[in-house]
Amino acid sequence: MEQKEISQAVISRLPRYFRYLGELKDEGVERISSQELSELMQVTASQIRQDFNNFGGFGQQGYGYNVEYLYDEISKILGLNKTHHLIIIGAGNLGQAIGNYMNFERRGFILKGLFDCNPALEGKKVRGISVQPMDHIGEFVKENDIDIAVLTIPKTSAVAIAEELVSYGIKAIWNFAHVDLHVPEGIQVENVHLSDSLMKLSYNINRYNSENTESRQGEGR
Amino acid sequence: MEQKEISQAVISRLPRYFRYLGELKDEGVERISSQELSELMQVTASQIRQDFNNFGGFGQQGYGYNVEYLYDEISKILGLNKTHHLIIIGAGNLGQAIGNYMNFERRGFILKGLFDCNPALEGKKVRGISVQPMDHIGEFVKENDIDIAVLTIPKTSAVAIAEELVSYGIKAIWNFAHVDLHVPEGIQVENVHLSDSLMKLSYNINRYNSENTESRQGEGR
Repeated sequence: MEQKEISQAVISRLPRYFRYLGELKDEGVERISSQELSELMQVTASQIRQDFNNFGGFGQQGYGYNVEYLYDEISKILGLNKTHHLIIIGAGNLGQAIGNYMNFERRGFILKGLFDCNPALEGKKVRGISVQPMDHIGEFVKENDIDIAVLTIPKTSAVAIAEELVSYGIKAIWNFAHVDLHVPEGIQVENVHLSDSLMKLSYNINRYNSENTESRQGEGR
Repeated sequence: MEQKEISQAVISRLPRYFRYLGELKDEGVERISSQELSELMQVTASQIRQDFNNFGGFGQQGYGYNVEYLYDEISKILGLNKTHHLIIIGAGNLGQAIGNYMNFERRGFILKGLFDCNPALEGKKVRGISVQPMDHIGEFVKENDIDIAVLTIPKTSAVAIAEELVSYGIKAIWNFAHVDLHVPEGIQVENVHLSDSLMKLSYNINRYNSENTESRQGEGR
């Protein structure tokens, strides 16, 4: 089947649709119109239709979408009908937080191993899984069919570790290190740069404050 | 001064410029052309010029940008020349990870307090700051000039806590709970939905695999 290229902006919105549809499904809602979904999610109905048209439109028939069907289809598009095996590199607070997050497992992301260069963490258990030293990674990846590595290590070591992981056959990196990784084609990288997010918040606070100060000054004239 | 509305897409890219310029500055680089910056950051030079034109262009004179000037200007645009006082609500692994991240402080984000509903965490120290019970939040916010609240609590309680925080005068929420918050105008919210990011990664793995299976099947015909 011919597949057209779908923009990362559309893909970024899919998990949010998936979340809202999951909640509707849990509430027992069977059908929903793009208009109703639009009000609930506070995006335009035309945006919703455009996004869904990338995937064939999901058969809205004038009387709305079938919630469960739509949920299942988006789940498949997101690859959530498959199981992924994860390892976490860096078992500090952030690595442990991710390891402890049960919901990922519910979506098919199974934590298989944790690794850290700090010998003090060796053997520490996160949800029953012991932290191992870094030099075990290569063998572990091969023996446990690992496809995703979560990088929760400082930026200074992340680039070298990412290269190593690729050489072991890792196909995807969920990167929390504050550095851009350069990986071969076919290796997927998704970045979570927390500092960038905080700076964006700071921008918006600053912007709002300066606009409001200005308009108050304007009123006073 | 008349300020034009700048898209959130442009704003999302500013922290990355800021990061690269900071590294160039640390390396002692004094000037850089948009072409060189383009190669370094792997975005087009025209994108860079367009982004910078939103802020008056930063005075490229045909012989490139002054790195330190550009770094300082972007820093000011991002509001990093101001100090922000943070509290963290939810002192589990994720809350502690954020509390322990020194780099935020370097950028003017000062952690003032931590709160958790779990009595077992009460008094636990994160960088010298003790975890307090939730019913201390209101008074603490007023007495310590807190402008940002970090929400690292489950989605079930996040909506109610966010409303409470707004009533105490919080101006910005950095939201890690997997739910959309509805706040009054003027309150800034920046979401970090980790599940959404992981699903996007899963989409890209799935997509790449299915494309490559197809092209291999195509070759075999």
